[in-house]
Amino acid sequence: MQQPITDHVDSHLEETIEGLKRLTRQPSISAQRLGVLECGEMVVGMLRDAGFDADLVPTADPGYPGIIAELKGASDRSLLFYNHYDVQPPDPLDEWETPPFEPTERDGYLYGRGISDDKGPIAARLAAIKAVRDTMGELPITIRWCLEGAEEIGSPGFHEFVEQNAERIKSDVCIWEGGGVNWDGRPMVMLGVKGLLYVELECRSAKTDSHSSYAPVVPNPAWRLIWALNTLKDESERIAIPGFYDRIRPALENETKAIAALPDTSREFLHDLGVEMAVGEASGYEFRRRLIMEPTANIAGFGAGYTGQGAKTILPAVARAKLDFRLVPNQDPQEILQNLREHLDRNGFSDVTISSLTSEHPARTSIEDPFVRQVADSARRVYESEPYIVPSMTGTGPQHPVQHILGVPVASCGIDYPGNRIHAPNENIRLDYFRLGVLHTAELITELGA
Amino acid sequence: MQQPITDHVDSHLEETIEGLKRLTRQPSISAQRLGVLECGEMVVGMLRDAGFDADLVPTADPGYPGIIAELKGASDRSLLFYNHYDVQPPDPLDEWETPPFEPTERDGYLYGRGISDDKGPIAARLAAIKAVRDTMGELPITIRWCLEGAEEIGSPGFHEFVEQNAERIKSDVCIWEGGGVNWDGRPMVMLGVKGLLYVELECRSAKTDSHSSYAPVVPNPAWRLIWALNTLKDESERIAIPGFYDRIRPALENETKAIAALPDTSREFLHDLGVEMAVGEASGYEFRRRLIMEPTANIAGFGAGYTGQGAKTILPAVARAKLDFRLVPNQDPQEILQNLREHLDRNGFSDVTISSLTSEHPARTSIEDPFVRQVADSARRVYESEPYIVPSMTGTGPQHPVQHILGVPVASCGIDYPGNRIHAPNENIRLDYFRLGVLHTAELITELGA
Repeated sequence: MQQPITDHVDSHLEETIEGLKRLTRQPSISAQRLGVLECGEMVVGMLRDAGFDADLVPTADPGYPGIIAELKGASDRSLLFYNHYDVQPPDPLDEWETPPFEPTERDGYLYGRGISDDKGPIAARLAAIKAVRDTMGELPITIRWCLEGAEEIGSPGFHEFVEQNAERIKSDVCIWEGGGVNWDGRPMVMLGVKGLLYVELECRSAKTDSHSSYAPVVPNPAWRLIWALNTLKDESERIAIPGFYDRIRPALENETKAIAALPDTSREFLHDLGVEMAVGEASGYEFRRRLIMEPTANIAGFGAGYTGQGAKTILPAVARAKLDFRLVPNQDPQEILQNLREHLDRNGFSDVTISSLTSEHPARTSIEDPFVRQVADSARRVYESEPYIVPSMTGTGPQHPVQHILGVPVASCGIDYPGNRIHAPNENIRLDYFRLGVLHTAELITELGA
Repeated sequence: MQQPITDHVDSHLEETIEGLKRLTRQPSISAQRLGVLECGEMVVGMLRDAGFDADLVPTADPGYPGIIAELKGASDRSLLFYNHYDVQPPDPLDEWETPPFEPTERDGYLYGRGISDDKGPIAARLAAIKAVRDTMGELPITIRWCLEGAEEIGSPGFHEFVEQNAERIKSDVCIWEGGGVNWDGRPMVMLGVKGLLYVELECRSAKTDSHSSYAPVVPNPAWRLIWALNTLKDESERIAIPGFYDRIRPALENETKAIAALPDTSREFLHDLGVEMAVGEASGYEFRRRLIMEPTANIAGFGAGYTGQGAKTILPAVARAKLDFRLVPNQDPQEILQNLREHLDRNGFSDVTISSLTSEHPARTSIEDPFVRQVADSARRVYESEPYIVPSMTGTGPQHPVQHILGVPVASCGIDYPGNRIHAPNENIRLDYFRLGVLHTAELITELGA
């Protein structure tokens, strides 16, 4: 690492944090269409201030514009950043120690909705770019940036957005969102994302809630939905939708080796969440293998009838459940949606409707790609420890179009640590890891330009 | 029916309805402790205005006082009225055509929360008492009135209240809340109530909601609660808690006959609720038998995770379900609570906690009781049609202590019709049936004094 770049990052750190706080104060809840446009404009402003040629670019839904930006450097060699400027809804609000949209610093941590996912990384990358540019006079490579405002609702229209803007986005390599350090502080280079199918199941009986004394004759949609869901997965955790596992490609030897090389942080992971025992009592290698390689059928929400204070003797008219399926290569979300429909029909639940809210294909970059070595080498120098190679993130993002339309290798490295609580109350970053993430990005830019 | 009494009822009908509207405007939601005391005081005021000696009388919980009132008549023969002045929560609010606490008259119907359950009957009985007293100079019998403010949360402490105030309440006969006409307009005399066990089940895993990408390793309490509930009842609708059906006494011959004599209103019932098909495709006798004689396990509410707009990929920290079990003679709510706990434990769900929110024993008055004939005879004269004898209401109320502590026969007759939508949005009464209910009560008072 060149000392002048480090000095620049450190002397501007307070200013960088102030920029991040400003960005976090602007809610941008895509699920609720709250503040998304305002936040997009703010990001464009920040990019232009840093010297980028940057614009809001419409997607199919004008409420969620993408952002495309470019800052030319000394060579044509090019690096693409992917980020998103939208955030998850902040509820349950009463579990936040400080308000989600009033970013607050405490004991070396910074709290706020989106502070880690994904506004912190935006601020960090901007700081790294400025440090390299100011120190070297100009960037050694061309940097492009593609941001979206609808990642947290499953990136609707992003596939078409990438297709339509391929010429403006296509670069030699891509750094994704996410990434950072493990519990032990060693950096992680992550090489893929899981896919996603997010559905809402609904069952109705009467046209209105009724008195629960009618229960001997009026069908209860909450019971029906429980019985329907029970056919999807039982206590074995095996997903019973026919064909669900059929397309999964077996783990490659280098993936298995990479997972084996990761430390056993299952205890820290569970302790941090206050969970006594992992599903299937998994620990060690098996714990990591499940997290990284296994698909899921998760109930994200279930609502029916009266859930307020005290007793209300009601027979609900409607019951709804939100489910997200995380998918691994080569599962296909549309095929699984169809299998789910057929499974419910076959089990007598054709009255349970399915709305598909969002879907995403899984994607992975090969561990053997030369770009992976460059990201790892630069990380090793900054963090002064051996990076972990993680075959896939446990989360989801629209890497599939970037890999498969643009043909660009993708890796994640950044500012995170495992206690970030993304999507949950008290989302936070650690400021020391934030600084290291800025330095690593600067180092990577320098390396790619060497 | 004496013409002067009918004339008095009719010439005061507008005034009676105004009183009912005033009472309905005062919310009294026991589940939320909202306006209960204020409403109790209002009822005491109305009773005193009608000449009663009336007082709020504390129960174990000072937030839910009972009311005991007496108006002496020409003889010691005594009639007890039971009513309650609390109401169910009004939600879902957006399904009300007019606000629940702004009573509104439309096309011969009056809408509002509590207008049928149970403020309409209070106003109707007051109107009948005034008509008899004003017309005859004094009541021919002594009327006592016992009201509670916590019926909708399962009458906690009412058993002890009846024990402690037995001397002030005990009467020769008792008219309960509920009752009115069937879909065909013929009056119904109802002779019992179902019991109730209302529980909340809760399952927790992590200390906070987390990112749904953790689903391969973090247990999901919504899944666990679904699996636990699935062991309680499957699509056969048979309740699988061991011992649940053991204490049910077989139907008596006169109960079976009475149910057979009721008209088949299953189509009207289902059409009114917008339900296509009854549970088990029941119709005719079987439909009525189930409603009147069968116990239930109803899900009144289920809540977990994110149930708002759009997609949120969350793994919930907690899942809760509210269940009400309607019980029939001689099921015992405490025994069933214990059986439920043991059943969950035996099936591996000792992590699912049970809070018992309320319970009530079932109760029935014998069809052969002479009081039943008096109620039916007076109904026949007023409605000019043959009354139906219904062995039990489908709902619940604290008749058990009145029957078993005071030893008083209990029947229900009143102002209702099957489209009342009690406990549901757009609760309503029909004004023509309201008037007939007033006249029947006046006729019964006259008959008991004859």
